[in-house]
Amino acid sequence: MLEPLDKLVQLLGRLPGVGRRSAERMALALVRDSGGLLKETIVALQDTAQRVASCSRCGNITLKAEDPCRLCTDRRRDDGILCVVEEPADILLMERTGAFRGRYHALMGRLSPMRGEGIQNTRVDALVERVRREGFQEVILALNADTESDATSSYLHDVLTSLKVRITRPARGIPSGSGVGYTDTTTLARAMEHREQL
Amino acid sequence: MLEPLDKLVQLLGRLPGVGRRSAERMALALVRDSGGLLKETIVALQDTAQRVASCSRCGNITLKAEDPCRLCTDRRRDDGILCVVEEPADILLMERTGAFRGRYHALMGRLSPMRGEGIQNTRVDALVERVRREGFQEVILALNADTESDATSSYLHDVLTSLKVRITRPARGIPSGSGVGYTDTTTLARAMEHREQL
Repeated sequence: MLEPLDKLVQLLGRLPGVGRRSAERMALALVRDSGGLLKETIVALQDTAQRVASCSRCGNITLKAEDPCRLCTDRRRDDGILCVVEEPADILLMERTGAFRGRYHALMGRLSPMRGEGIQNTRVDALVERVRREGFQEVILALNADTESDATSSYLHDVLTSLKVRITRPARGIPSGSGVGYTDTTTLARAMEHREQL
Repeated sequence: MLEPLDKLVQLLGRLPGVGRRSAERMALALVRDSGGLLKETIVALQDTAQRVASCSRCGNITLKAEDPCRLCTDRRRDDGILCVVEEPADILLMERTGAFRGRYHALMGRLSPMRGEGIQNTRVDALVERVRREGFQEVILALNADTESDATSSYLHDVLTSLKVRITRPARGIPSGSGVGYTDTTTLARAMEHREQL
């Protein structure tokens, strides 16, 4: 690979879901259409770097000119309930469901001792401070459903319990549209145990 | 989605293999780490735009300071055989196999009447000109194996036949490492018909 492209491939490969081979295809597509796509992408990235940032309150992406973000300042939203997620991308997804109308807090990761990521790298302290000050009645820990995220949830549960707030998490079970035969055994065992009354 | 990100998502979505959802995840990952990844990616793209171009002879990616490219000027390569591919990315892949030591010509696409892409959008004329002038004994049409690419191959075959050059294409059959049970019927039928002597 040519040297200027090597660096680009390496950077693109750090994006989520982009492997070495995809990064190469992307870099080559950018070069192939250098008159258009490459230059437009540079402009869009520069515009993003100049105008977009994380909301200082909840961690959601926002315009630098709008901090706190629209979700934090929207008066029609419920101030009594806080949804904690790992990534800003999760807020976007959650908003698309329309199922939640409270406030958000993105941790910007999770506790991962194996990868040397502790509390200092996340916004856990800011979360505790918000729960202490903003008077939420309920905190939903909407983290991922794997080992590290579960450990992070446990930790948050321990820390938040002393603040006298109701702590919940989204239901787990068989995904909508899927079937028993396609569900892994852990999920199925949990779904049986927490079965719902019809 | 925020307006500066909308544009970025739309551009990333034009890259090969990147759908709307992947483009969003990539854009959010870039913003989330705006201090590092975003700025480094801008620099890498600018560097690429400034220094990388297509080889004026074969269409391969090359440094602007090296045109014709290294593959065109490498004296150890065989001047008698030309491999025609659709995309510069195919040259990269072909080089990794180590199975070809001649010259290349990237068409920059293929004939696609359905999408309004005719000869004028590709480097077909340049190919004919090269075959006429550079005296190749063999031209390998290493295009993709679908309908539009096959139609392009047929067209190239017709055009090149009058130039008294041997025209070939890579073998088609069951992929190495795969099995009969995993092969689609068209491939399998062709593989049976063109079976090899053991």
